[in-house]
Formats: sequence, C-alpha cells, structure tokens
Amino acid sequence: MSGHLRSGGAQGAAAVSPAEDALRTIDWRSPDTVVIVDQTCLPASLVLRELRTVDALVQAIRSLAVRGAPALGVAGALGVLVAAAQARREGWSDARLGAELERLRVARPTAANLSWGIDQVAARLRDGTAAAEQAATELLRREADACHAIGERGADLLSSLRSGPMVIQTHCNAGALACVEWGTALGVVRSLHRRGLLRHVTVDETRPLLQGARLTAWELARDGIPYEIVVDAAGPGLIAAGAVDAVVVGADRIAANGDVANKVGTYPLALAAARHDVPFVVAAPESTFDVRVRNGAEIPIEERAVEEVVTLGAVRTAPSGARARNPAFDVTPAELVTAIVTESRVLHPSTCPSRTGAAPEVPS
Amino acid sequence: MSGHLRSGGAQGAAAVSPAEDALRTIDWRSPDTVVIVDQTCLPASLVLRELRTVDALVQAIRSLAVRGAPALGVAGALGVLVAAAQARREGWSDARLGAELERLRVARPTAANLSWGIDQVAARLRDGTAAAEQAATELLRREADACHAIGERGADLLSSLRSGPMVIQTHCNAGALACVEWGTALGVVRSLHRRGLLRHVTVDETRPLLQGARLTAWELARDGIPYEIVVDAAGPGLIAAGAVDAVVVGADRIAANGDVANKVGTYPLALAAARHDVPFVVAAPESTFDVRVRNGAEIPIEERAVEEVVTLGAVRTAPSGARARNPAFDVTPAELVTAIVTESRVLHPSTCPSRTGAAPEVPS
Repeated sequence: MSGHLRSGGAQGAAAVSPAEDALRTIDWRSPDTVVIVDQTCLPASLVLRELRTVDALVQAIRSLAVRGAPALGVAGALGVLVAAAQARREGWSDARLGAELERLRVARPTAANLSWGIDQVAARLRDGTAAAEQAATELLRREADACHAIGERGADLLSSLRSGPMVIQTHCNAGALACVEWGTALGVVRSLHRRGLLRHVTVDETRPLLQGARLTAWELARDGIPYEIVVDAAGPGLIAAGAVDAVVVGADRIAANGDVANKVGTYPLALAAARHDVPFVVAAPESTFDVRVRNGAEIPIEERAVEEVVTLGAVRTAPSGARARNPAFDVTPAELVTAIVTESRVLHPSTCPSRTGAAPEVPS
Repeated sequence: MSGHLRSGGAQGAAAVSPAEDALRTIDWRSPDTVVIVDQTCLPASLVLRELRTVDALVQAIRSLAVRGAPALGVAGALGVLVAAAQARREGWSDARLGAELERLRVARPTAANLSWGIDQVAARLRDGTAAAEQAATELLRREADACHAIGERGADLLSSLRSGPMVIQTHCNAGALACVEWGTALGVVRSLHRRGLLRHVTVDETRPLLQGARLTAWELARDGIPYEIVVDAAGPGLIAAGAVDAVVVGADRIAANGDVANKVGTYPLALAAARHDVPFVVAAPESTFDVRVRNGAEIPIEERAVEEVVTLGAVRTAPSGARARNPAFDVTPAELVTAIVTESRVLHPSTCPSRTGAAPEVPS
C-alpha cells in the first residue's frame, strides 16, 4: 500500500534506503504476505521482512522485530489473513486454524491491541477471504489515520496547557515504527514540531532493548526533529529540575478505570510529573482500551528473558551467572495521568467519575 | 595496610585472584604510592593500579577507576600525600603544590567527601610528612570502621521497621568498592544477611556505567548474598507491586537540610517508596554532609561525557550523530528520606526541625 515497503527479493529480507520519506512499519501484500520493517536491525540498517506463516509472525512479534501496541493490533489483523492463507495451502481444519490464532494471540501478553486486531478480522472470515482482507486493510488504514488525529488532538491539548516552544519527555518508541506510520506520542511531537511549538524531545534510551536510543532517535533524526537521549534513570531528575514541559508516552493497555500499562520506566516519569505539576499525557488509539480489565492490577505484565538485562548486543554487562529479572511493563495509576488522547476524544482519568469500574467516557 | 592490595610488580597494574577475602578498594603504600582496585576492569578482572602522581590520581578519579563518595574522601586524603611526595621529588613551590591540590579537588564536582579528605590532611602538612601520613592513614582506618558501624546501625533500624527476611532495593554501588571496605548501603545489606534477615537484593544495573550490574553484583556474588539485577526503569514498578521491603542507597553529598545527592536514578526510587510507604534509607559516613550548602538546589550536579550514554563498551547504542545528555546525579529531597544512617547517628530528615538551613542534628 506504500511505496516504501517494496521488497527487493523473495528471500524475505531487503535493505531499503533510509532516505525514503514515508515509513510504514507494517503492511499487507495480497494474497498472503505481511511485510514489516525489522526493528531489531535499526538503527544500523533498515531491513524489510516478508512473513507468510503464523510461525514467522509469532517469532517476529516475540523478538520485537515488529512491536508497539498499534502495530501489534495491525499484526493481529493481518495475522488472521496469513493464517487463513496458510490454512488453504496446507489444508488445515477449522480447529487447527483456531488453535493457530490462539497461538498468535498470546505471542505477547500485555498489549491489548493484538487480541483486538485478531478479533476484528477473525469475525469476518466466515464471509470469505475477500471480506476478511477488506476488513484487515481497512483496519490498517484506520489505525494509520488515527495517529494523525491523535497527533493533532495532542498538540491542541498541550498548546492549551503550556506555551511553546516545549521540551517533551518521552519513553520507549511510540512513533511510526510502533504504529503503521506517524506514531502516537511521536505523532503529538510531529504535530508540535510542524506548529513551531517544539524545542526538543528528551528521549529515554529505554533499557534493556533500547527502543528509545535505537528507534525513537532514528525516527526523529530522519525527520530533522531535535532530540537528546538520556539514560532512563535521568528523566525524573530532569523533571524535578524544571527541564521538561510535558511528558508524552504511548500505552500497551488501558484498563476500564484509566490505569495505563506501558513500557517499564513510564511509571517513574508519571510520579515525577505529578509531583512537579508537569502534564503527563498518554497518546493511544481507542484499540488500546480493554474495558474487560477493571484496573491496572488485572493487566498481565510480560516478564521477558533475563539475558536482555545482563547483555547489550554482544556485550555482557554483569558477572557470568548473574541473576536478573525483566518485567517489560509497569502500570501508571489513572490519578497520575493528566489526559489520555485518542483519535476521537480526550479523557481525563484523574478527574473521571467512572474510575470505579466503568470505561472512562469523557468527551473531548 | 591490607594483605589484599599487594601488587606483583612496579608497572602499576597487577591482576589479583578474586578468591581472596578482604577487599580494600584504596590503600596507601608508604612513602609515595596509592594502590587502588581499578573498577573499570570489573567484573572481567580484578586489577590493582599504583598511582604516584597527581595526574594519575586525577585520571583515575575522572575515569571512575576509583569511585564512590567514601573512597573519594580517602583518595583526597591520600592524594595530599601523593602530591607532597611529588613536590619533594620535583621541587615544587608551595604555590604549585596548592594548585595541584585544587586540581585534585575538582576532579569530580558532586561528592562532598573528596574536598573533605583533602582538607583533613592538607591542614597537617605544615607539621611535616610524618604527621600528614599519620592523619591520612587514620582517616582511612576511620572510614573503614565507619562502614561497619553504619551497617550494624542500618540493620538495627530496618529490623525495627520491617520483619525479615527482607527484599532490599539498591542503586549504583555503595559497597566495599565505593568505600575502603565493607560498604555503606551494602554494609547494611551485609549486616542484614549475617542476621538471617535478608531475602535478596534487587540491584539496579545503573546506566550508563553499570556500577550495579558490574560492581554490586560482583561484590554480592563474591559474598554469596542472593541478588537480582533489574534495569533502572523497573525499580519503581517493583516497589508499587509490593516486591520491595526497603530501599537502601548511599550518598555523594548531603545538604544542611537533609537533601541527598546520589547517583542519577535514586530520586525515582524515593518517589515510589514514599508513595507506597516503603522505608527509604540513606547510608553514608558523616564526611558526606556538606553543611555549607543549604539544600539540594545548591549541590553541583556533574554532567559527564555524552559518549557514556550512546555507547556501552564497544557497542554503539544510538544512531551516529545522536545527541545526548548525561547528568550523573540527582537530588532526593529530605521529605522523601525516611532516615540517614551514619557511623554515629540516625537522622530523620523528613521530621527534622532544622530543615530550613541548619545541619540536621537528631541523635540516634
């Protein structure tokens, strides 16, 4: 669908010039192929991968080759098409197809969007392949459009709270690479930049897998947006020192009461922002809400391999035999969130009357 | 003074078996040599370095080959002896000697102890070399003894606040490597462990230079004390999840009102601990107080080279040309500190009546 994601060969990987403008991190090539930017190769090289089996897609999701809650929603939707095509090729029973979709659903446990994407398209399978493909590609287009709306709405909100040019602190990567294109938190950043309201972005490096230093810095540099990378531990101190005008992050799952699960390290920024009266804004599509979970305590937190903590690339960072623990997300309680900005509304969880269980429903 | 710090040759570096028991991170060999454990080589190898010039000592301090506020106090004290010996060898004027001591004083700006150590011994130089050497080696012995007292007092305090066995969260390295031996925060950990009151230590890896993953993990493994390494961003979420019984950290400078400067990433732990009613304890010798600074805002915060942030060993973690910022410390306000434990007292800054400017003086 985008000129950017053409691949040079049938081997499943192709380098693309970083100079091209549009960046679509996940896309569909009919009749059977998901094409992704392999985010494990950035910033060293921009590599596309073609995925034609559930195995390949699950592996890409687990390794974070494709990552970010909105992109995972699209991966779930397109994954149904991949599974259906594989079922036709290999003569799977309906039961086998259902089991493969369940395997895809649990590839990562925290992001709400993955399950949501699967459900949206799986419900259309009974109407035939064409109907399912139409549903999936419409979902992809809507998620892409959503980021532009989130960006504009977030910029409107921040310019009503702070005078520019602003320093925006962000964590992890909630940019084009995490979405279809444009980004959620970085969508807000891009809109502020276009309006001349951005001084620079303070980017947490985001250990252990460095999505900030590798991916957010790469995206911002590509767009000519000024940024500074800091270690994750530095953000709260910079907020306390008055060096940050607002914190803007994405989300992996938002509970019915407005509690937000996001990449581990988000919660310390929220604590510091609340203490120092700095706006803390969550930018996420509506597909990130999971009103079946009442609050953050019910959100499953993925624990990833400890090797991610005690190594960095080929470098071992701790003594051999060192023990470690690797929770991938943390939960920011609703009362620390100034606003959640979606493609259709602005919610204020900290003042929301429905914090006791029902979905927050504050129109923008 | 210790059997541990013998060096194999005159070339200034010698590997030592990690199996030896005593660990004295800095020591004096009369008449002119400081011997240090080179902490940049850990955990891969335990290397001793012999330092006989102000240049060599300043370089060792700047590169963090010798680091930790208490050890820097001793480095200041022994540095006066090194400078005086070099002055005799090279025929320096008194003015030149004074200038060299000022260069040593500013090798790192945040730790209070470095200046304190220099002042303690420089005042004795006029009484002759023997008097200065006696003052410096007594200071070294007192700082070593102080850590044992801090450890016992801290364990007394924590066992009055929490029932064991406890999970202790710490940041950076406030252990034997940061002191002369035994450690401040890790002195408390060692005392709890001896009493059977420790479950395990949660160790922040402490980016960018990984003092937690490299040094604290190495010390704890050497002593058979259980630990888990986590990325710095994870601590506040673990505290919120009830996985931590107390936070214990060291300090680089403590202002008159009880505000504490310590390795960047300390403040987020204090914010989470306060919110979740988890004790936040600072373990530090009296030499860490600087009553000339009224509060944390007056403490100079060292900004180190940005290369530390965008690299890890030989691995580049960000795109080439990436901009970064590297504040090495943050300030935890006194009202978030449950107690400061020194070799002679326990202070409760959050309830201290003298928080408006005078030194906190609450007897234990």
